Parts: sequence; structure tokens; C-alpha cells
Amino acid sequence: MVTVNENYLKLPGNYLFSEIAHRVEAFREKNPGAAIIRLGIGDVTQPIAPAILKAMHKAVDEMGDSRTFHGYGPEQGYEFLRNVIAKEDFLSRGCQIEADEIFVSDGAKCDVGNIQEIFSLGNKVAVCDPVYPVYVDTNVMAGRSGNYNEKTGRFEGILYMPCTKENGFVPEIPKETADLIYLCFPNNPTGAAVTKEQLQAWVDYANKNGSVILYDAAYEAYIEGDEIPHSIFECEGARTCAVEMRSFSKNAGFTGVRLGYTVIPKELVRGKVSLHALWNRRHGTKYNGAPYIVQRAGEAVYSPEGKAQLREQIQYYKSNAAMILNGLTQAGFEVYGGVHAPYIWMKTPDGMSSWKFFDYLLSEAHLVGTPGSGFGACGEGYFRLTAFGSHENTLEAVERLKELR
Amino acid sequence: MVTVNENYLKLPGNYLFSEIAHRVEAFREKNPGAAIIRLGIGDVTQPIAPAILKAMHKAVDEMGDSRTFHGYGPEQGYEFLRNVIAKEDFLSRGCQIEADEIFVSDGAKCDVGNIQEIFSLGNKVAVCDPVYPVYVDTNVMAGRSGNYNEKTGRFEGILYMPCTKENGFVPEIPKETADLIYLCFPNNPTGAAVTKEQLQAWVDYANKNGSVILYDAAYEAYIEGDEIPHSIFECEGARTCAVEMRSFSKNAGFTGVRLGYTVIPKELVRGKVSLHALWNRRHGTKYNGAPYIVQRAGEAVYSPEGKAQLREQIQYYKSNAAMILNGLTQAGFEVYGGVHAPYIWMKTPDGMSSWKFFDYLLSEAHLVGTPGSGFGACGEGYFRLTAFGSHENTLEAVERLKELR
Repeated sequence: MVTVNENYLKLPGNYLFSEIAHRVEAFREKNPGAAIIRLGIGDVTQPIAPAILKAMHKAVDEMGDSRTFHGYGPEQGYEFLRNVIAKEDFLSRGCQIEADEIFVSDGAKCDVGNIQEIFSLGNKVAVCDPVYPVYVDTNVMAGRSGNYNEKTGRFEGILYMPCTKENGFVPEIPKETADLIYLCFPNNPTGAAVTKEQLQAWVDYANKNGSVILYDAAYEAYIEGDEIPHSIFECEGARTCAVEMRSFSKNAGFTGVRLGYTVIPKELVRGKVSLHALWNRRHGTKYNGAPYIVQRAGEAVYSPEGKAQLREQIQYYKSNAAMILNGLTQAGFEVYGGVHAPYIWMKTPDGMSSWKFFDYLLSEAHLVGTPGSGFGACGEGYFRLTAFGSHENTLEAVERLKELR
Repeated sequence: MVTVNENYLKLPGNYLFSEIAHRVEAFREKNPGAAIIRLGIGDVTQPIAPAILKAMHKAVDEMGDSRTFHGYGPEQGYEFLRNVIAKEDFLSRGCQIEADEIFVSDGAKCDVGNIQEIFSLGNKVAVCDPVYPVYVDTNVMAGRSGNYNEKTGRFEGILYMPCTKENGFVPEIPKETADLIYLCFPNNPTGAAVTKEQLQAWVDYANKNGSVILYDAAYEAYIEGDEIPHSIFECEGARTCAVEMRSFSKNAGFTGVRLGYTVIPKELVRGKVSLHALWNRRHGTKYNGAPYIVQRAGEAVYSPEGKAQLREQIQYYKSNAAMILNGLTQAGFEVYGGVHAPYIWMKTPDGMSSWKFFDYLLSEAHLVGTPGSGFGACGEGYFRLTAFGSHENTLEAVERLKELR
């Protein structure tokens, strides 16, 4: 008799974004005329840049000719893409990352979810609170979490590191020993950035304790100025303690194109076992590479035209973020993030709970955001807005928020 | 201190296809002039059909316009694709499969590798011998295999079901109870097909014992005539005991485009838990959907033009298979498969081991195939040839093989 993976049953019922969709749908049914503006889910709205479209059309044509057809590619990604990533994302910033330390995939969410597989079940997992739910849920599914505590909204075996306005939404290094440490900067959902000094302290901690940092840098393209590190490999010693995940979703609008990558340095060894070799085995056994057409699209992201067009696209979203940040500040709301990230993290007014504010905003202003409590206990009393809408909608949303005051 | 997943270390060193690549490379270095023909790896060579190219170009254009841009799609796949799959692959054959029982993915290899996650570690896994290595390796990585026995070439905790010429390469139902049963028909590597009666016996066995059959139907497009089932859901009672995996790689040449799907009926329940719900949770948490462009390509596979063009493409490969089968039979080789599948399973001549024949074929005829022993102990003394080459190369390969006799 087959038995199921009981760890799945520990997950609380509703996924955050399903619950949001459900409430919006219910509201819409009752108010069919309402012009709802969504600043909730982190999906982009701007079309794919012309240089990337051109590369995709060309790749499609290649697939139609037996002389240029591409079947199975290397599971780790084509060299043309791994080479340009190493050069443009790492060497250009002084990070020593080789092309064969880069594993191309169909998205950072998959990598972030799958990476825990190469570690034993005995590792202590540490996450920020609030946190992107995938870090926690995938460890729950694997059996690394212990039970869910309804009262605290937390899993008993996971170490939660509070990110609050007191610590600038950057977690303090824990007193307990953490093995697998998930860090995401610029942060989803708080929009907070980490300084190089702060990140260096984490790298030093990990090297001292034999921990591994799983660094999610999906939002690095939004970083402003030269003070904030774009990669954990800008820190000394990161090659012996860090894995980095990157996405093309937010820097090139690939949420529907699907491309990401994971960097594992060859010096990253635990118990004499190379994590690079383990991930390579995983990739080769359970994955068959990203589509050729999509990898050519990824390559075009780094072309001179692609870069120029994407700078503009990111500027578009960044100016949305500034619009929200300034508008809400002027209106007297307490707001964070939005400078180095496409996320604005606002304190709910009048001590409202996150979900109460969600319902209030939906019914009074026809605006959809994301309740902070959906990201963890420390997110209670906060609310996430994203900068991925159109200028027009963002402007209109800010006006509606101002009117609420 | 981080500890690694020790189960990975149980996997024997070399992956079959890496070893082949290594030996071919070594030969090529010594014999730079040799015209090597590869009938080894199961990769297609014909370009993508025009109807599919057209759909992809259109989808690329849609991605370039904000009015038709597609960001995150449903993790389970777009309705337009799930609907046409349900209609064309199942309803048209009298199988009751609903669109929302279909989970679209970036390939059958991923699904086949990931599906074991939703089951507990205590399940007894049964596989055919010879077998597609992914079934075994992913269970080893998860910790469901026990140790590897160097002498037998088998994992101690896995139930291997011999597929030999005596049983027509269709395994007998085991005396021990098997929980998770991997079946692949038409089979990789033997090319054998299963009759409806044989498959029905497996379904009955699974329902009686509470087992679950993980049915890999990646090669169904090569089935000849009406006797052989295309889907396990043609069998009565399969909705309560079977999961089916399908690929677009071999029916539409998508090895580099990447698309597949998994069917889990809603009646498939174990210990009161719906496997459909578990897989849905897994898909939603660790996956973000196949690219929009690729899903539109998948849709075009079922268009009238797409169907006509792909029938021709499959006929091309099928005539290669017939060429190999007939040529080798005439030359006095003992050959199997090749009728309902793109694989020809030949007995090595003169009692040579699979790898000895590999080396012999490479050095004497400059031909590359796949040693049967790479697929399991019962594959020793066999050799796999594929029909995915060009007509010209296949014809030339058959001539060279004939000359060896």
C-alpha cells in the first residue's frame, strides 16, 4: 500500500496568493463596475524588450532548419549564456566566478525550491521573518521543519530571524547555530537592502560555523548607487560558504519567459563533498536544460541594445516605486523599501491587521496589495505594494491612497 | 555545520551518457578523419514543424506588446493547452481525463524525476530491468533505495523486474508487493510494447494492492495499429491507481523546446490524501509554469496543420526504425523493438558484453550506440540503436553493420 509524504500535510491550507485571488474575485462579483488596481503579486507588466524579441525570433527560425536545429542542450546551460553571465554579472564586479560554476535553469523559484535537496534532513534552517514562502514550504515538504504551531504561525524546527523596523529589516546574526541560511537582498517583501559590511558579517559567520548561505539576489537590478552589493560574491570568503540564485524575471521581464540561474563555487565543500558536484548531479538527473530559444533570449539581455532597453524598463518601475514612496510619505503613511527594490513595505495605519487593511483597501479604494502577515509573523501590521504596474495605474493608486488619509 | 544529502553518494560514479561521450571523444582524438555516426542518445534531428514555428513567432510577438504580454501564467499550465490535451490525447481515445487533471511542465524527465517526492520514503519501488536510469537515480537521491551492490549492479532496496526475450521484454507481476511501480511503454530502451490485456493486469494488481503505477508514455506516438494502448487510462480502473507522464520531445521534436505533462486523476487517493492535491501543491511551490511561447508551441502540435506535419515527421523516424530492423535481421543479427518505438534493441553478436560491442562498433564501423548494460543488469549483452538519425546516416549505419557480419 502506497503511503504519501506526510510532510506535505503540515503545510497550512491556503497559499497567500490564492487567498488574495479568492477575496478579489468575491469583491469583483459584488462590485462588477469597480476599477480594481493590482499592486499585489510581483508580476511585471512591461513587454519584452525589442532586442530580446529579435533574438527569440532568430532562435525560432534556427529551430526550423535542420542545420541549425537544437535538440537536447547541456543540462547546465549553453556555454554562450554561461560565459556572458560570468563576464557581465560577476567578473565585471570583481567577483571570481567561472562559467562552469553557473547552472542555468527555468527560474529562480525552481532553484530556490530544489536547492535544499542536496543537503541532509538534519540541517537547521534559518529564514528571515517576513520571508518569501517558498524557502519555508520546500523545507517543510522535505521534512526539515518540525510541526506547524497555529498560535505562533511558525514551524517549530525552523529558526526565524525577525526583520523589523528596529533593525532596518536586516536580521541580526542568531545566537543559535544555523546551518542553511536563506537570505534575500534586496528583500522580498520588505524592499530592504543589505550593506556590504552587514553581508560580510554573515559570510564570516557562515565560514566560522560551516553554515551555507543560500543567497537570493533576484532583485539586484534595482540597486541604486555603488554602496550596496549586487552579489554575495563581492564579499571576501563567500566562495567557501555561499550559493547565489538569480532570476531574469525582474531585470528583463521574464516572468512568462522563464529563466534563472544558480551559482555554486567549486570551493564550496562540506564533509569533503563538493556541493557543486551534488547540484550538477541533481541538475543532470532531474532536469533537461532551459529551452534553447529562452537561453538565446537570456543572452540578448547582455547585448548593448538589450542592456540599454532594460535600463529604461527598470527605470520605469523604479520611478513607480519612487512615486509610491513619495506619495505615501507625503500623505503621512509610514513606508520602507522602494529605493533598491521594486517593493514598498508600508505600516498599516491605525494599528490595523494586515488582512483588515487588505479588505479595507479593496473595499474603499479598490486597490489590491499583499498582506504582510502572509510573509510571516513579523509581517503582521505591514502591507506590500509593488512597483510593477503601469505609470497610470500607479499614479491613480497613490491618489486613492492619499484620499484615504 | 552543514551536512550533505548522503544518499547522493550512493550513486555509482559515471552516468551512462557521459561515459559514452568520453569514449567517443577519446576515439575521435586518435582518429580525426573517422566519419562517426551516432545512433546512441535519444535526441531527435528533424527541425520543428512549420505550424509550430508559426505559433512560436506569433507568441514572441505577443510578448512584445503590453496588450498581449504574458507574465506569470498558471503553474499548472494555460487552459488553452490543458483543454486541447484532454480532448486530443484522452477524450478522443475514450479516456475520461479532465483538463484540470493535466499538469503541464517543462518536460517528462523533470516530472518523472520529481513525482516520487509526494510519496513517503517507506514505499517499495519497482522498476523494469533494463530501465531508464532516472527512475532509479531519483529514488536513490531521496533515500528510498538502500545501498548499491557492486556485484549485482543493483540497489538492495529496489525491486527489479527482469525484462528479457523470454517474457517479450514485458515484466511479470512480482510476487513481492510493490508500492510505486514505474512502467514505460513503448519501452525505453527495449522498444517493446505492452498489450491492453497485459497493462490491464498491472492496473488490477495495483488496485488490489494499493500500489501506484507511474506510467511513462513518452513514446506513444510511435505505436502502430489499434491493438496497443496509447494511455494507461484506456484500462479500466486506472483512475484509482495510475499517474501518466507524457512528453512532446519525441512526437513533436521538442527535446530543445522543453514541454511535457503529467496526468493525475482526482480519484487517485492514498491514506485519504489526494495525490492530485499533493502534486498541485508541489507544482505551485517549486515550479512556475512552462514558458508562454512553449505552451503556444504545444497547442500548435494539435492543430490540423501541426498534426499532418508531425505525422510525416514520425513516419520519417519510423521508416528509419524499419530500415534498421530489416537490415539487421537480414544480416543475421537478433533484433527486437523498432515497431511501436523509435528504439531497436539488438543482441550483441558472439556473446560480446555490451561495452565490448560498443568499443568494437566504434573502432570497426565508427558507429555509436548505447550499451544495454548501462540500463541495468538484464541489459547486459544487448545494445540500443535509435531511429532519430537522418535517413542517410541510418542507411549508412545499416550498411556498416551488415559489413561486420
